Amino acid sequence: MKIILDCDPGHDDAVAIILAASAISPLTIEAITTVAGNVEVEKNTLNALKVCDIIGLDVPVAQGAVRPLVKQPEIAEEIHGESGLDGPNLPATPERKAINQHAVDLIIDKLLTANEKLTLVLTGPLTNIALALIKEPKIKDNIEEIVLMGGGSYGNWTPAAEFNIYVDAEAAKVVFESGVPVRMFGLDITHQVLATDKTVTELKEMDHPVADFIAELFIFFIKAYKDHFDFNGGPVHDACTVAHLMDPAIFSFEHLHIDIETKGEHTYGMTVIDRDRVTGKEPNVCVATGLDENRFWSLFKNAIASYGN
Amino acid sequence: MKIILDCDPGHDDAVAIILAASAISPLTIEAITTVAGNVEVEKNTLNALKVCDIIGLDVPVAQGAVRPLVKQPEIAEEIHGESGLDGPNLPATPERKAINQHAVDLIIDKLLTANEKLTLVLTGPLTNIALALIKEPKIKDNIEEIVLMGGGSYGNWTPAAEFNIYVDAEAAKVVFESGVPVRMFGLDITHQVLATDKTVTELKEMDHPVADFIAELFIFFIKAYKDHFDFNGGPVHDACTVAHLMDPAIFSFEHLHIDIETKGEHTYGMTVIDRDRVTGKEPNVCVATGLDENRFWSLFKNAIASYGN
Amino acid sequence: MKIILDCDPGHDDAVAIILAASAISPLTIEAITTVAGNVEVEKNTLNALKVCDIIGLDVPVAQGAVRPLVKQPEIAEEIHGESGLDGPNLPATPERKAINQHAVDLIIDKLLTANEKLTLVLTGPLTNIALALIKEPKIKDNIEEIVLMGGGSYGNWTPAAEFNIYVDAEAAKVVFESGVPVRMFGLDITHQVLATDKTVTELKEMDHPVADFIAELFIFFIKAYKDHFDFNGGPVHDACTVAHLMDPAIFSFEHLHIDIETKGEHTYGMTVIDRDRVTGKEPNVCVATGLDENRFWSLFKNAIASYGN
Amino acid sequence: MKIILDCDPGHDDAVAIILAASAISPLTIEAITTVAGNVEVEKNTLNALKVCDIIGLDVPVAQGAVRPLVKQPEIAEEIHGESGLDGPNLPATPERKAINQHAVDLIIDKLLTANEKLTLVLTGPLTNIALALIKEPKIKDNIEEIVLMGGGSYGNWTPAAEFNIYVDAEAAKVVFESGVPVRMFGLDITHQVLATDKTVTELKEMDHPVADFIAELFIFFIKAYKDHFDFNGGPVHDACTVAHLMDPAIFSFEHLHIDIETKGEHTYGMTVIDRDRVTGKEPNVCVATGLDENRFWSLFKNAIASYGN
Ligand SMILES: [Ca+2]
Ligand SMILES: [Ca+2]
Ligand SMILES: [Ca+2]
Ligand SMILES: [Ca+2]
Repeated sequence: MKIILDCDPGHDDAVAIILAASAISPLTIEAITTVAGNVEVEKNTLNALKVCDIIGLDVPVAQGAVRPLVKQPEIAEEIHGESGLDGPNLPATPERKAINQHAVDLIIDKLLTANEKLTLVLTGPLTNIALALIKEPKIKDNIEEIVLMGGGSYGNWTPAAEFNIYVDAEAAKVVFESGVPVRMFGLDITHQVLATDKTVTELKEMDHPVADFIAELFIFFIKAYKDHFDFNGGPVHDACTVAHLMDPAIFSFEHLHIDIETKGEHTYGMTVIDRDRVTGKEPNVCVATGLDENRFWSLFKNAIASYGN
Repeated sequence: MKIILDCDPGHDDAVAIILAASAISPLTIEAITTVAGNVEVEKNTLNALKVCDIIGLDVPVAQGAVRPLVKQPEIAEEIHGESGLDGPNLPATPERKAINQHAVDLIIDKLLTANEKLTLVLTGPLTNIALALIKEPKIKDNIEEIVLMGGGSYGNWTPAAEFNIYVDAEAAKVVFESGVPVRMFGLDITHQVLATDKTVTELKEMDHPVADFIAELFIFFIKAYKDHFDFNGGPVHDACTVAHLMDPAIFSFEHLHIDIETKGEHTYGMTVIDRDRVTGKEPNVCVATGLDENRFWSLFKNAIASYGN
Repeated sequence: MKIILDCDPGHDDAVAIILAASAISPLTIEAITTVAGNVEVEKNTLNALKVCDIIGLDVPVAQGAVRPLVKQPEIAEEIHGESGLDGPNLPATPERKAINQHAVDLIIDKLLTANEKLTLVLTGPLTNIALALIKEPKIKDNIEEIVLMGGGSYGNWTPAAEFNIYVDAEAAKVVFESGVPVRMFGLDITHQVLATDKTVTELKEMDHPVADFIAELFIFFIKAYKDHFDFNGGPVHDACTVAHLMDPAIFSFEHLHIDIETKGEHTYGMTVIDRDRVTGKEPNVCVATGLDENRFWSLFKNAIASYGN
Repeated sequence: MKIILDCDPGHDDAVAIILAASAISPLTIEAITTVAGNVEVEKNTLNALKVCDIIGLDVPVAQGAVRPLVKQPEIAEEIHGESGLDGPNLPATPERKAINQHAVDLIIDKLLTANEKLTLVLTGPLTNIALALIKEPKIKDNIEEIVLMGGGSYGNWTPAAEFNIYVDAEAAKVVFESGVPVRMFGLDITHQVLATDKTVTELKEMDHPVADFIAELFIFFIKAYKDHFDFNGGPVHDACTVAHLMDPAIFSFEHLHIDIETKGEHTYGMTVIDRDRVTGKEPNVCVATGLDENRFWSLFKNAIASYGN
C-alpha cells in the first residue's frame, strides 16, 4: 500500500513516520508533507527531515501550508516544546533537504500520476489536503482513503474540539464533506494508547539508536501530558493511523456521519459524531471505536526492533 | 427541604413527582409547574394533574410557558405518545384543577415569600425558570439550588444536544449563566438508570395502584426507547433529580464549567462541559458523573412501596 | 386610538411622550411602561415619571425588564448622560409613583381586557413586548399594530446594528416573527429628523415650561450627537413613532420582509431588510422610507404649543 | 501600471477586460485568470478567451478555482445566461487557448518574479487570491493594491450580501484581513453606472466590431436586470475597477474598516462597513463612495472608440 504522510512532527507524528518506514511495514511512503500545526511549518519540516536522517529514510519531503484556510494560526508549543520535537538531542540542521515544491502540488502530482490509488495519512491539521481538494478536485478519484488522527466525542484544545481539527476547522469541513472515504482516529481511542515510563524502559533496553530516539521523545512527551493534562502517560495519537494500516486487526470501527462545526461560539472545530444515527444523514466516516491495546504495542515493539536488525 | 417541581410530564417526570411525594420522601413539594416540552404545555398540565389524582397529591399546579424564549417549539411525541403520558389507561379529564396563575409568577411569588430557600427541580425545558430570572432577578437570592435533568457530553435529539436543553437553549444559557448553583443530571448518567421488563414485573408484584400506574408507564416507555433508540430499557432520566435530593449518596459529582451553545450550525443546545478544565473558566455546575445503581433502585422501590402502606 | 408607550426615556422618548400627551393628540395613553435600555430600568422609570410630572400626565407607569432576554445588558450613557435624561434641571425624585405591577403583566392585562385593539408604541429595546408575547401569546389578537423605533439599513451602535435592536436582538426576533403587524422607524428615516440650534431657539421663544424642558433636552442631546457621532443636530428618533400616529401623512412606507440577525459575528442585532425582495419571503414589516420633514416639525411645534394654551 | 485581471466573465467582466486592453489604457495586463462565479470556471475561461479573440489580446489566460474555499458553489445563470456571456453570437470554441498552469500558481509566479509591484484587479469571487495568499503569503510584499468589485452596504444576492463576496465569503475574509491594501467598488457605487438603451445606440453608431460586441452584451444584460431586479439599465459593475485605474479622478473614496461576516444566519457574505467609525478598528479598505458619472462614460467611449482606429 502506497501512502503519503502529511504531518506536523510532533512527537507522535515522528512515531508514525518511524512505524511506517520500519522493516516490517507493508507501507510504501511516497512522500512526507508538512503543515503548520504543533509548531510553525518551517520547524515541522526540519523535524520531519531530522526523523528521516535518524532512520535513514529517503523520500521526498515537501513543505506545505504556513497557515490555516481562514482562521488565524495557533500552535501547541506547551505540548511539543519550542522546536516541536523537544526531548532528544538533535542537530540544529538536518542532513536531508526538503524538495523545492509546495506540499499541495506534490500531493496533487503524486495522486494524478500514480498507477494505483494512494492512501493519505494525515496527522496534523487538514490544511494541505483541503487546499489540494479545492485546487484540483480530480484527485478525489485517486485517493484510496484518508486516514487521519483528529476529532473525537470530546476535545483537548477546547472542551469540544481536538487540536488538529480546531486549528483549521474549515479545512476539516472541506475534507469531511469531500465524498472521499475518511477513517478517523479521535481522542476517544488515541487517549487509550499511552506510552508510559515502562515503555521508555523497554525502549532503552532495545539498545539501538532508533529505540533511544523514541525513548527520549516519550520522556519529554509523558512529562508534558502530566504537566498539562495530568495524564499518566503520553498518548501516541498519530501513530494509530499507521498502526491500523500495518495491522487492520488492532482497531475496530463504526461507519457514522460526522459534521464539522465551524460556526459555534463554544464548539468551533468539533467533530459532531452522529453515533446514535439520529440525523438520518449518510455515514461519511469510519470512526475508530475499539482497540486491542496489546496488539498495538506488540506491533510497535516489533516495528522498532526491526530497525535494530 | 422545600422544592418546586417544574416539569413536562412525561413518563420520567411522572416518576419524579411520585418519588418526591412518597411517604418516605423528605421533600415538601411547594408547587408543580408545567412547561411546553415533551408535548404541548396544556397536555403536560393535564398529565401533572392526573398524576396528582393518582397519588392523591394536593399542591398548587400552575401552567407555564407555551413556547421557548426564541426558538420555534418542538415536541417529542414519538417518545411519550400523543398525550405525553401514553400507556396507562387514564381519564380524559383530571379531577384536580390547575390554579389560575402563570407558572412564572407562581415561581416568583413562592421564592420571594418563602421563609427558607427553595430548591428548584427542573425536568423539562428551562423556559419557565429563565423567564422568572429575567422578570425578577431578585429571586436568585432565594434559590437554594437548581437541580435539573438535561444536557450531557452527547445528545439524544441531535448528536450534540439533549432534548430539554435543545428545545430552549437560550433559556438554558440564561439559567447556566445566572450565578445560581446548578446541579445537572445529563445523559451520561441518566442513560445508566434503565427501567426494564424486570422492573415492570417487580412493580406488578407490589399489587397496588401507584405501582401499577408506573408499570404501565414503563411498558410504554421501554417500547418507545427500544423502537426509537434501540435501548434495552427505558431511562428514568428525570427521576434522578428527585432521587438525589432524597438520598445524596446515590450519585457522585464533579464541579465543572459548562457553556451553552446557541450559535452552532450542528451543536445548538449542547452543554459544552469543560471536563478537563482547559478553558480556565470557573466551575458553574455540579455535574453528576457517578452512580450507585443499586442504591437508586432500592430508593425507588421503597418509595413506591410506601404508597401501598 | 389607544396606545401603550413602552420606552427607556431617554431624550427622544421624552419627546415622544410629550407629543402623545399633547392637547392636539388623538392618542389615548393607556399606560407607560419602561425597560432597560439607554440606562438602567430604574432610572428610566424615574425619568418617565418626571416627564409625567412636567406635563401633568396621569397614566399608569409600570416598570419592566431589568435585562435583555439572553444577552448581557448594555447601556448608552454617553448619549443620554448618567441619569438617562441629562440636561434639564430636574428634581431627584418625581412626585408621581410607578404602580406596583410588572410592565409585562400590565401590558398583558391591558391587552386582554381592552374593548378595542391597542397600538403598542416601542421606543426602547423590545424586551417587555417579547416577554409578554412569550408569556401570553393570546395578546396577539388584541394588538392593532406594533409601532417601533429601531433598526435600519445600517447601525449606530455597531456598523450593522441600531441600539434598540442590538441591546436585545433575541427579543426583536420574537417580535418580528410574531405575526403581529410591525411598523418600523429605522435610522434611515430618524437620522433625517434633526433638532438643531434653531429648534432650540424657537422652543425658547415659546416661553412656557414644557417648551423650555424640551429645549434643555435638545441642548444636551445636540451636543452629545456632535461629540459622539459628529452630527449637526440631534435626531429625535423615538418621536417619529408618535408623530406618525398623530399624522399618518408625514411618513411614507414600504411593506418588506425583515429578518433579525442573532448569530452573526459582526452583525448581531441587524435588521436585515429585504428591500429588493430577493428572499421571496412574505413582507412582515411596514418600513418608513420617506418623510415630509416640514410636516413633522409643524406637528411638533403645534403639539408643544398646545401645552401653552 | 501592471495588472493581473482575475475574473468570471461575465458581461461586466468582459467590459473590464476591453477597457484595460484598449489603446488609451495605461495598464499592462500581465495575465487574465478565471474563477468559478457567474458560471462554472470552464465556461468563464472560454469566455475570457473569446473576449481576447475579439479584441486580439495576447496575454496568458489561466484557469483557477472550480469551487469556493469552504461553501458549496453557487452560480448566477439568471443574470449572465447559460454560457455566462449570453447575447453576442460567439463561436463555440475560442481560437486562443488557456495556458497549462493553475491560476493560483500563475498569480504567485507573476508576483514573485515581477520587477515592480503588481495591481490585482478582481471582478469575480475572491477564491483564487485567497488561495494564493494561503499558499504563498510572501506575495503580499509584491502586491501594489487589490482593486475589486464586490460588497456594499446592501446586497443583491441576499438582502445583506453581494454576489462576488457571497459566493466565497471565507475567501473574502482572507483577502480583507490580509493586510494588503484593498480598494472596493461595492453596489452603492456600481449601481449608479448603468448602461441603457441610449448606451447601446451610441455603441452601434460607432460601427466597429468591438463596439458591436459590447452593444450585444448590453442588450442582454439590460434585459436581465430589468427582468430580475426591475432596473432601468445594466450596471457595468466590474468595469469600475479598471476605469478607476485608467482615470483616478472618476471615483472618490473613504478609508474605512470592513469586516466580512461568515457566521451570520441572514448575513453570510456581508461586507460590514464601519462608515461611522464606531468600532475603533483601523481602516483596511478604500471604499468608493463618490462618482463622476459623465467622466466614467467619457472614458468608456474613448476606450471603445480607440479600438476603431
Ligand atoms: Ca500531529
Ligand atoms: Ca421531562
Ligand atoms: Ca428610546
Ligand atoms: Ca464578475
